[in-house]
Amino acid sequence: MPLPLSEDDKFHEECGVFGVWRHKDAAALTALGLHALQHRGQEASGIVTLDEAGLFHTHKGLGLVGDIFGDAKVMASLPGSAAIGHNRYATTGETALRNVQPLFADFEFGGLAVGHNGNLTNAGVLKRALVRRGCLFQSTTDSEVFVHLIAISLYSTVLDRLIDALKQVQGAYSLVALHHGALIGARDPLGVRPLVLGRLNDGWVLASETCALDIVGADFVRDIEPGEIVVIDDSGIRSVTPFSNTESRFCIFEYIYFARPDSVMEGTPVYDTRKRIGAELSRESAVSADVVVPVPDSGVPAAMGYAVESGIPFELGIIRNHYVGRTFIEPTDQIRHLGVKLKHSANRAVLEGKRVILVDDSIVRGTTSKKIVEMVRQAGAAEVHMRISSPPTTHSCFYGIDTPERSALLAAKHDVEEMAKLIGADSLAFISLDGLYRALGKPGRDSAKPAFCDACFTGDYAIPLTDMADNAERRSALEKASA
Amino acid sequence: MPLPLSEDDKFHEECGVFGVWRHKDAAALTALGLHALQHRGQEASGIVTLDEAGLFHTHKGLGLVGDIFGDAKVMASLPGSAAIGHNRYATTGETALRNVQPLFADFEFGGLAVGHNGNLTNAGVLKRALVRRGCLFQSTTDSEVFVHLIAISLYSTVLDRLIDALKQVQGAYSLVALHHGALIGARDPLGVRPLVLGRLNDGWVLASETCALDIVGADFVRDIEPGEIVVIDDSGIRSVTPFSNTESRFCIFEYIYFARPDSVMEGTPVYDTRKRIGAELSRESAVSADVVVPVPDSGVPAAMGYAVESGIPFELGIIRNHYVGRTFIEPTDQIRHLGVKLKHSANRAVLEGKRVILVDDSIVRGTTSKKIVEMVRQAGAAEVHMRISSPPTTHSCFYGIDTPERSALLAAKHDVEEMAKLIGADSLAFISLDGLYRALGKPGRDSAKPAFCDACFTGDYAIPLTDMADNAERRSALEKASA
Amino acid sequence: MPLPLSEDDKFHEECGVFGVWRHKDAAALTALGLHALQHRGQEASGIVTLDEAGLFHTHKGLGLVGDIFGDAKVMASLPGSAAIGHNRYATTGETALRNVQPLFADFEFGGLAVGHNGNLTNAGVLKRALVRRGCLFQSTTDSEVFVHLIAISLYSTVLDRLIDALKQVQGAYSLVALHHGALIGARDPLGVRPLVLGRLNDGWVLASETCALDIVGADFVRDIEPGEIVVIDDSGIRSVTPFSNTESRFCIFEYIYFARPDSVMEGTPVYDTRKRIGAELSRESAVSADVVVPVPDSGVPAAMGYAVESGIPFELGIIRNHYVGRTFIEPTDQIRHLGVKLKHSANRAVLEGKRVILVDDSIVRGTTSKKIVEMVRQAGAAEVHMRISSPPTTHSCFYGIDTPERSALLAAKHDVEEMAKLIGADSLAFISLDGLYRALGKPGRDSAKPAFCDACFTGDYAIPLTDMADNAERRSALEKASA
Amino acid sequence: MPLPLSEDDKFHEECGVFGVWRHKDAAALTALGLHALQHRGQEASGIVTLDEAGLFHTHKGLGLVGDIFGDAKVMASLPGSAAIGHNRYATTGETALRNVQPLFADFEFGGLAVGHNGNLTNAGVLKRALVRRGCLFQSTTDSEVFVHLIAISLYSTVLDRLIDALKQVQGAYSLVALHHGALIGARDPLGVRPLVLGRLNDGWVLASETCALDIVGADFVRDIEPGEIVVIDDSGIRSVTPFSNTESRFCIFEYIYFARPDSVMEGTPVYDTRKRIGAELSRESAVSADVVVPVPDSGVPAAMGYAVESGIPFELGIIRNHYVGRTFIEPTDQIRHLGVKLKHSANRAVLEGKRVILVDDSIVRGTTSKKIVEMVRQAGAAEVHMRISSPPTTHSCFYGIDTPERSALLAAKHDVEEMAKLIGADSLAFISLDGLYRALGKPGRDSAKPAFCDACFTGDYAIPLTDMADNAERRSALEKASA
Repeated sequence: MPLPLSEDDKFHEECGVFGVWRHKDAAALTALGLHALQHRGQEASGIVTLDEAGLFHTHKGLGLVGDIFGDAKVMASLPGSAAIGHNRYATTGETALRNVQPLFADFEFGGLAVGHNGNLTNAGVLKRALVRRGCLFQSTTDSEVFVHLIAISLYSTVLDRLIDALKQVQGAYSLVALHHGALIGARDPLGVRPLVLGRLNDGWVLASETCALDIVGADFVRDIEPGEIVVIDDSGIRSVTPFSNTESRFCIFEYIYFARPDSVMEGTPVYDTRKRIGAELSRESAVSADVVVPVPDSGVPAAMGYAVESGIPFELGIIRNHYVGRTFIEPTDQIRHLGVKLKHSANRAVLEGKRVILVDDSIVRGTTSKKIVEMVRQAGAAEVHMRISSPPTTHSCFYGIDTPERSALLAAKHDVEEMAKLIGADSLAFISLDGLYRALGKPGRDSAKPAFCDACFTGDYAIPLTDMADNAERRSALEKASA
Repeated sequence: MPLPLSEDDKFHEECGVFGVWRHKDAAALTALGLHALQHRGQEASGIVTLDEAGLFHTHKGLGLVGDIFGDAKVMASLPGSAAIGHNRYATTGETALRNVQPLFADFEFGGLAVGHNGNLTNAGVLKRALVRRGCLFQSTTDSEVFVHLIAISLYSTVLDRLIDALKQVQGAYSLVALHHGALIGARDPLGVRPLVLGRLNDGWVLASETCALDIVGADFVRDIEPGEIVVIDDSGIRSVTPFSNTESRFCIFEYIYFARPDSVMEGTPVYDTRKRIGAELSRESAVSADVVVPVPDSGVPAAMGYAVESGIPFELGIIRNHYVGRTFIEPTDQIRHLGVKLKHSANRAVLEGKRVILVDDSIVRGTTSKKIVEMVRQAGAAEVHMRISSPPTTHSCFYGIDTPERSALLAAKHDVEEMAKLIGADSLAFISLDGLYRALGKPGRDSAKPAFCDACFTGDYAIPLTDMADNAERRSALEKASA
Repeated sequence: MPLPLSEDDKFHEECGVFGVWRHKDAAALTALGLHALQHRGQEASGIVTLDEAGLFHTHKGLGLVGDIFGDAKVMASLPGSAAIGHNRYATTGETALRNVQPLFADFEFGGLAVGHNGNLTNAGVLKRALVRRGCLFQSTTDSEVFVHLIAISLYSTVLDRLIDALKQVQGAYSLVALHHGALIGARDPLGVRPLVLGRLNDGWVLASETCALDIVGADFVRDIEPGEIVVIDDSGIRSVTPFSNTESRFCIFEYIYFARPDSVMEGTPVYDTRKRIGAELSRESAVSADVVVPVPDSGVPAAMGYAVESGIPFELGIIRNHYVGRTFIEPTDQIRHLGVKLKHSANRAVLEGKRVILVDDSIVRGTTSKKIVEMVRQAGAAEVHMRISSPPTTHSCFYGIDTPERSALLAAKHDVEEMAKLIGADSLAFISLDGLYRALGKPGRDSAKPAFCDACFTGDYAIPLTDMADNAERRSALEKASA
Repeated sequence: MPLPLSEDDKFHEECGVFGVWRHKDAAALTALGLHALQHRGQEASGIVTLDEAGLFHTHKGLGLVGDIFGDAKVMASLPGSAAIGHNRYATTGETALRNVQPLFADFEFGGLAVGHNGNLTNAGVLKRALVRRGCLFQSTTDSEVFVHLIAISLYSTVLDRLIDALKQVQGAYSLVALHHGALIGARDPLGVRPLVLGRLNDGWVLASETCALDIVGADFVRDIEPGEIVVIDDSGIRSVTPFSNTESRFCIFEYIYFARPDSVMEGTPVYDTRKRIGAELSRESAVSADVVVPVPDSGVPAAMGYAVESGIPFELGIIRNHYVGRTFIEPTDQIRHLGVKLKHSANRAVLEGKRVILVDDSIVRGTTSKKIVEMVRQAGAAEVHMRISSPPTTHSCFYGIDTPERSALLAAKHDVEEMAKLIGADSLAFISLDGLYRALGKPGRDSAKPAFCDACFTGDYAIPLTDMADNAERRSALEKASA
């Protein structure tokens, strides 16, 4: 079976958010925070500030934070002591500037800016109803649904309108909002996506991850709770919990791959967790070998944990080219067959004649894994054993992660033995679901009430997939009609 | 003493070169080779190809290889089965396109393209003589001196003219040249800068490092010898050795920092060498500690060697932000004091309460080291011991490496104890010069005939610094005159 | 009295529109039509096409038509046999891409694109009401009011919704609209702005002026009537006249300056009219002189008419620099005092020692006139007599023309004698209002029911200035409150 | 016979030059002067200034003067009280920045900048000799030959080296040069290309035409004489006349088309001359008609002269679109057949039913004329009589004018009757050569010693075409060899 070609075969976090209240360099801090959150979205970024006169200022661009906000003139055009910012990962065709967040709108009550990490599962249904009502959509983002719901709400305060809107949407979201009286942070009732609160002198910071607090020198205060709305204004911070049912179903993949290793999520350091996952993986699927080699960079901590637990030396058998960044060599035929080598190269001195354990965080389509195994063999490896620090990804994510359709997921159609053959490895093993929960400090997975959202491994979708059902229904109505 | 600020406190390799003879995708291979050599120069790149009709084609640009040559149209404009390419690292003010290599000139005998890695130490003296003779210089690069010397040579063949030119220049150089009959590679009589030969099907490849052979799938044949000129044409490859005195004084810093870890230089794998240096360093300067933490990414192999030798756990206590690349946040005052944090962040989970051994490859001005130590302490480290995998860099390099003036080198003005205090470390140690030679498989340094160029540690300059002496002389003549 | 500096001292037409129905090269024809209408707006242009599958395609840009649509790839991205286009003249600060027309919106009934030439006089009042209702505005153009009114209309057909919207707006407008069933053209009840209908093979064309029909080879059919809506679809063309009261008050300044000389407006060739105005001006304000010199290019036909009528030779005493275009030499002090000379230069051979009659179309602020007179004197003219082919412009226009505030109009504050002194002319005369009407074939101005909109000369505003009144009222309410 | 397509069917002046000595705003004046000379070259411009410290500053760009020098920062980067500038018209493929003048070189004696209007007829021969000698050429312009000749001259002063160089070149040239002691102007021994001297306060100005003196407010002093070199320094101005044989053969086409109408050349105002040519043309080739219509803009003065002399009314029957500028609609098939209409449109009100005399300045390939005639007929003209204010252009120019190869000149292959048929005119007439000389105040053409260079009409080339002969000879040698 020929595998499709893909340079980058990973799930992708779709966004990062950041907010500051009461700091004279609000825009600069936001730029730094977005820079620290760059791994959560590299296609576009935006910042909206609010100045002392109550005026909003905005700058958005396509590209990396440092390029968009690296110009002193740009920073000077963003005065004010409050700001929110947003990094965006965009799927094909939708990198238009009008989709770059934060979204901003002039309402009857004044301006409001909103930045949103996550994905709504009933955005399509809501959007059709809004258009019927006469609302004009300008972007193709889910997030604009929030803005229209706020605009047409009959409540009078900003906060009540926001709650009114949140109660109508379904999905996973962490959002930051800024209006002339307050900075607001909110997390969906299951707390699927992260959002943390920090303190910086007498001001406040909201961010997707703690690494963004660290870069601006803010102290971590706490995670925003599932279903919690925090309102930060000059009188301080207060918490609103408008949802009757909340429980914690934090995204387990943040630990495996999305979050930066130096972040602390829901009380647990990501780096430590990854090493523990590696150790657990070693216990579950030991194999006799000479070296443990990570697939850089995301596989490194798990490989270290694996190596220590197994006693097999950890070696850098694959070198990553740091200058790939946004660079892009167009896939002429000559170059295409050289495949993954633009990003990685084999370190022959480490691999030649060795039995190699390769540690990676996940297998999505399998294309990269296949090339990595091939490259390692070409460099002279005697055996290649692939070990994966997540369970098989058998289902798509609809909660803010860019994943291929289910049919493109290798694990959705093949068992582990077939997958090993397809990627060309001598052996392949994934960590078990219970092993993953154990590495996270749980006794195992409680299938009645799982501690995390693990839908990509289990298909157990905790938030209804309304649009998907609606589409299926429309199609079946159509099929009936045409029958 | 306040240290000057600098984001990047390293010596910098100034160039990488690549050449192909007889391959239908010569330009694409050269782009790939330059991509693999990107660490040797990130400011600009150029490719010159030679097509079947004897016509030369050229494309140059400022930026990364992938950006300059990522466009299929650009690649289509570079037909031909022979090519040379060049990556450039440029110091301030000189990133003009006219300085980007390969340089190309129309001579009486036809076109010639030249790419040059290294630095001439008598370029100023030669240039003044050439201008007096009526030569018009177009760039400010040393390399143009080669071109004029070839142009005015009285010899009739290209090769004889090139030898005539090489005999007049002093300095360190590895160069590739292309004219309508041949691809030529040359290395200075001491072989200070690297140049390797590879075989690709029935064609040939020249490159600064073996990692560039790997990316195009070429087999390593051998290093070009010090003082050797290889001429590759359709009748095969032949070697010319025009210099009576040659000996090997290969740049020792290539092993420490410049070369990519997966390259093999002068028969020795760079990655292994760096681990051996780390182990030697551990033996020489052991200290009681909880974790060994590399300063990423260049310090990683030495830290691994150090950790294994010392038995102290290797941990990723510093995380590198991969999205810095060329991005640049302009140094507003707000951001400047946050310093090195744009590139690195501390992993508190690893550092808090620990006695930390930090391993880095070198200390140049000391600015980065100071910030790293500070950052590690702020993350809660109990002790910080800095270990450096090179001897103190007390002298500037004039052989193709961008180094600060001697007065800016921390080790030129301070002993190790003072340096420890300046960077804020609890202890500081460098590998000894003999230890470094031992890690490279020598019994130690033979001061009568050192196996490597180590002038940056010793001030033992094997190639005369003619321009520098000439400048000094002119100044003193002037001083006499004005006295 | 020092006059303010201004390079361009004219009233400016704010927009041009164009539409095609049923022609395989709809986008190319629209680009050509917009090119011919470039004089009606040079800041930005846009085209929306509708393809056979019912999909809309759009491309907009800042700059000249030829630059925005000069690329074959752009044209290839605009398939379809129906299209509308728009040229925009923008006042300061509002050249953002989001303001470039045609505006496009997805409604419940499908997509609709609208291009609008003119200005609404109650846009502010309507916009406030729409925002209160929950509508989110994306641009700062009047034209978006149309779109929201259509979106929220309770009528079910596109045409009824459009009529519903038109009945709520006040102002001057000619608009073209495209939805998946039809191309629509509409003109306000007084027909202030032009709109013509043309026939091209079996397709139809709508355009602001006949010169845009000529360039695409379309035959002129007729002017759209004041208050008329034409609906062009595959069954042909039909006319809807939803307004009970309509009368013709076509903008008289179109004849004087805005329209291209080769256009025919309301049955009258513009070029002929301008010559007749010049002849009438000569009869009204004869003066003894040696040469009649036009201020190029707009003054040329009137000057020709003046010269023939007076028997004084017509000479090109002022040369226009054709390369000014969008070029712009920043007003350093050195250059600023050289003033108008960037665009014009005096032809000394014609002017030296002569009594000169200068003919121009209007005096707005007087800045250009002052410089022109000065330049002509410096070239040696013995006398300079300025003759203007319009009456004094004493009032601002609110119907789609960019004019200065009334206080900046020279004629609003000075009588003719003072104006002559201010611009430095030996004599100055304007055509009379009745003389202007006579040149247009009327017996004179019927003040009870003027045949044209001449508010800029008379202050007789035929369409209510609702926003202006509303602003005045709000201010006075505020003043009362604060009293 | 199908005619090839061409949007612009004119001869083109290849360059304009400007220089200033002793004025604090030297760069700004030069930008203005180049702006006034924009008609002599629109592809690229450059300015070199010399500051008080003896340093040179340079800025060059592709595009219009206003775009290249419109930025205050650019102007601020060009300090100094002396400057030279150059406008370039470039033929295909050679708009590279390295070809933009002024050329600048560092010589043994210091820097020298040179700007050159004209063309060398032995540049190829000289260039080959220089390359044989070891000179490296960087541009593909003739002008670089000057620079190398100066560089290798054995004379010691700049002026002697320049004279040495000028004595070796053949061709037509007017040049300005700047070195640290002086501003230099020079004209070839026949004075084919223009160069004038002006006085501005206590400084001096050199320019290709007087219109560039006018824009900066300089007073015209005199034309530089054929073969004269003027040296302007702080001690004043002096004249050197190194050539033994000089006579005046000024380019007659400057009067017909190249020069701006407000310039005065060799004592004769261009505008007056063009009207006199039109009058002479009317006398020579009268025809019964209703209107005289110029092909704008270059045909206007001749048409005015024709109209006055013939008593037939002058009318603007063709309107020029002022927004074509650099705009460019790519020739898709749809648009290509609309041909010349992008630049011109017919004014039907003037043309319909009329017998039309069209006046243009020249016919080169005939493509534009054909389209203009066709357009005028389509607008309803009853008859179209074409009158041309130059004799038939039967020969190419090698003296600094961009002309097609001889074989592409319509008049080189067809007599007037055939040409009339090819362009579709009812009649066609050119002014006679003697008539042209009469209009210029001569009794007629003295074939023994013509007062002007008229080679394009006569093939009488006053300067040897050395390169052309050399090429022919090389070809024939080759042919012999291969025979």
